[in-house]
Amino acid sequence: MRLRNKPWAEDKIKQYPQYVVPEPEKWRGKWRELFGNSRPLHIEIGTGKGRFIAGMAEQHPDINFLGIERQPSVIVSALDKLIEKELGNVKLLNVDGSRLRDFFAKGDVERIYLNFSDPWPKKRHEKRRLTYRMFLKLYEDILVEGGEIHFKTDNQGLFEYSLQSFSEYGLLLKNISLDLHNSGFEGNIMTEYEEKFSAKGQRIYRCEAKYRN
Amino acid sequence: MRLRNKPWAEDKIKQYPQYVVPEPEKWRGKWRELFGNSRPLHIEIGTGKGRFIAGMAEQHPDINFLGIERQPSVIVSALDKLIEKELGNVKLLNVDGSRLRDFFAKGDVERIYLNFSDPWPKKRHEKRRLTYRMFLKLYEDILVEGGEIHFKTDNQGLFEYSLQSFSEYGLLLKNISLDLHNSGFEGNIMTEYEEKFSAKGQRIYRCEAKYRN
Repeated sequence: MRLRNKPWAEDKIKQYPQYVVPEPEKWRGKWRELFGNSRPLHIEIGTGKGRFIAGMAEQHPDINFLGIERQPSVIVSALDKLIEKELGNVKLLNVDGSRLRDFFAKGDVERIYLNFSDPWPKKRHEKRRLTYRMFLKLYEDILVEGGEIHFKTDNQGLFEYSLQSFSEYGLLLKNISLDLHNSGFEGNIMTEYEEKFSAKGQRIYRCEAKYRN
Repeated sequence: MRLRNKPWAEDKIKQYPQYVVPEPEKWRGKWRELFGNSRPLHIEIGTGKGRFIAGMAEQHPDINFLGIERQPSVIVSALDKLIEKELGNVKLLNVDGSRLRDFFAKGDVERIYLNFSDPWPKKRHEKRRLTYRMFLKLYEDILVEGGEIHFKTDNQGLFEYSLQSFSEYGLLLKNISLDLHNSGFEGNIMTEYEEKFSAKGQRIYRCEAKYRN
């Protein structure tokens, strides 16, 4: 995503602690206390401008959502959506996804969403892809037993790679769609990126990968 | 495939026992004797008019190939190719693929090719798809440990289904291509069907599924 520099972003984030969680390390192992209920927790890694996470929170009031985005200039757009919608079941973390273990204990999270992650097409950047085995281990360390990753992308190479990486890790593949918008899939919430690219006729690929515990 | 009735087909098949193996049950557990060497054995289920198996045999003289096709009127076209090419490392079986255990013992086969198998799109016909779990068990019973299925199709629904079925069975997915003819894959031998459909701009999907023994 192209970044516009927003020097005021960090200040704005601090003004809304009810939406962008300050010191998320504090809630490790006790996110239910923060949300004030024991609903399942779903997180999105790379929330961007927040359209997906805000839409999901609206559509699923019985689930708690956390959107994780490290760029302050981007997460402020997600923050604006939460301010506008006034939803009680969604918050944001302005942190780096590679530090998930600092914020979540084993079993804190029921489901992880990865949407249009950076494909890092060069082989030497494989380790940066969010479906690289090191990340699959990271997710395993915070998910419940039998937890799931829900993944979508328009990038064919990343999708091929990810299916193989999931398989190699031993995950169970479910609900694979090689053309999401022409499948029968219901309740799809489009990201900003997804809307733009699918309007150009690009296929969207999607799958679910479940840990076999 | 549309079938033209060829009442002379069965007679012709009988005239070429060096190419269409008579009484294949006899060779169960001892295919190396039939080929006169101990090269690996690769089989194709649903060989059709034989372009793939004949092309593969030409390209890989170090492998023995068997093409399995139950329709006499179709297998005669494959037979014609073998007669013309005079290859020593490829033969045909005019039998039904569901009877594989009658012809092969555990470990007889190194690799199974499934090319453009009937998609049987209706849910109630799932059991007829050649990637249904019952068939995956059948293949396991004749393959070497760590044996592989190499699968290609132009049918999106069958490919989605098959990836999931492979995954559910515990197979390791490798070399997935969601657009074979625009991938870097080398040495692809096109089937008759593949050439026809890819000329229309249809994508070809391909993957390899390995038994984890």
